[in-house]
Amino acid sequence: MTDPDEFFSRDTFARYSGIECIKVSDGTARVRMEIGDRHRNSHGTVHGGALFTLADTAFALASNSEGIPAAAINATITYMKAAREGTLYAEASEFSKNPKLATYIVTITDSTGERIALFQGMVYRKRVRNDQGDVTA
Amino acid sequence: MTDPDEFFSRDTFARYSGIECIKVSDGTARVRMEIGDRHRNSHGTVHGGALFTLADTAFALASNSEGIPAAAINATITYMKAAREGTLYAEASEFSKNPKLATYIVTITDSTGERIALFQGMVYRKRVRNDQGDVTA
Amino acid sequence: MTDPDEFFSRDTFARYSGIECIKVSDGTARVRMEIGDRHRNSHGTVHGGALFTLADTAFALASNSEGIPAAAINATITYMKAAREGTLYAEASEFSKNPKLATYIVTITDSTGERIALFQGMVYRKRVRNDQGDVTA
Amino acid sequence: MTDPDEFFSRDTFARYSGIECIKVSDGTARVRMEIGDRHRNSHGTVHGGALFTLADTAFALASNSEGIPAAAINATITYMKAAREGTLYAEASEFSKNPKLATYIVTITDSTGERIALFQGMVYRKRVRNDQGDVTA
Repeated sequence: MTDPDEFFSRDTFARYSGIECIKVSDGTARVRMEIGDRHRNSHGTVHGGALFTLADTAFALASNSEGIPAAAINATITYMKAAREGTLYAEASEFSKNPKLATYIVTITDSTGERIALFQGMVYRKRVRNDQGDVTA
Repeated sequence: MTDPDEFFSRDTFARYSGIECIKVSDGTARVRMEIGDRHRNSHGTVHGGALFTLADTAFALASNSEGIPAAAINATITYMKAAREGTLYAEASEFSKNPKLATYIVTITDSTGERIALFQGMVYRKRVRNDQGDVTA
Repeated sequence: MTDPDEFFSRDTFARYSGIECIKVSDGTARVRMEIGDRHRNSHGTVHGGALFTLADTAFALASNSEGIPAAAINATITYMKAAREGTLYAEASEFSKNPKLATYIVTITDSTGERIALFQGMVYRKRVRNDQGDVTA
Repeated sequence: MTDPDEFFSRDTFARYSGIECIKVSDGTARVRMEIGDRHRNSHGTVHGGALFTLADTAFALASNSEGIPAAAINATITYMKAAREGTLYAEASEFSKNPKLATYIVTITDSTGERIALFQGMVYRKRVRNDQGDVTA
């Protein structure tokens, strides 16, 4: 079983981007980011890369929450509304899972609950073989 | 006509993430990012959010290079190979364009030219009306 | 206001693919397809194109349900489980909407309720100007 | 090594949709579809499901061309221009590949070479173990 606090403490780019972990439980995660000047793009709104990083961090926490190392293979993001100030929240939940692959949906909302972006990501789950050649994860 | 240097100078999150603009011309852009410790995820490789930000920055430069403000509406990224050190490059090129919508493909490669990620993004192009109500862009 | 029965009666490829419309209401739609031999791919399971067509038909009905002509601009589909027999259902619901763009999520399930595929699509909404130049839709 | 003609002969939904295989070689494939009334959507243009099926068929042929059974895990399609008549072509090519996963890009063009849609798909490659437990593919 992965310790989410320890896992998040090693997520350097998320922390550098000002993201905080609120809660992780089996297959779900919730994170937040207080919008600051560093997050802006050339239009003055929150950068797509900052929004993606926020969603991706929730996705990584959720997909690694069950003890099997999970590597992202692809992801998609759709932007609903430009964000300018306040705090953004990303909530990830597992949509489906088989032994090798799992899919997560992440919704980004602002402080008023309005939808800012919708993210969907897939991971490849790395199964580990023990000395006897059995799959342990 | 947008000045790419001026446009990029206002891209705070890209600059905060260590991204540099190499070249912008009509509908294309090339940027780079030297991998540092701040870019890592919990697995020690470059964070999906950092890779996305790199590609997204090239996408924004390319899609805004022709003087019509372009807002990203959605994007997808596929990861080929984990990146660990050295410099990453993202190259954006326009795949298609109509008066309202345009699609760009961005490829991220490492210093050896190996493919790290493939990004595809779509923008909505904001047409501006002048005082006579004519569409000018 | 679009009449969904009339709209669906003109959806030739959906009908050719054996899709039936169950229900359409504002921003949502539900359709079904009884799996037959014509739907199979080279592996003997339901073709990705047949699954996409099923989801896309629900998406078109939902996105055109409010009287504004809506044209799909892009879509993504993720496959959870191969389908082999029985009836498949696709349920579309609006996730977000602004005057120009709207996003829909469609879930495909089998007769037992198991998830077969997840689809997400975006439309461009064509506003119509009347004789006075006002936007009517 | 998979025989593409035999593989395509079993692709029932592609054939039912009027798709023909032009050429398959290692990691690439080219197919075509003559537009007929059966392919239309409620707006009278070629159905998104028919376009997706065309691209998906090229993707399946290309990804299964090297003898390892490949199952699609997700795909995305972007529409550039509505198609109304004539013949459509889809050309698939491998973008990247590792032992488990591979990504393909498919472009749909019309008879004049104009771009109609851009498709991207990923497969999971099923390795087969022989009686001695060795991976053979």
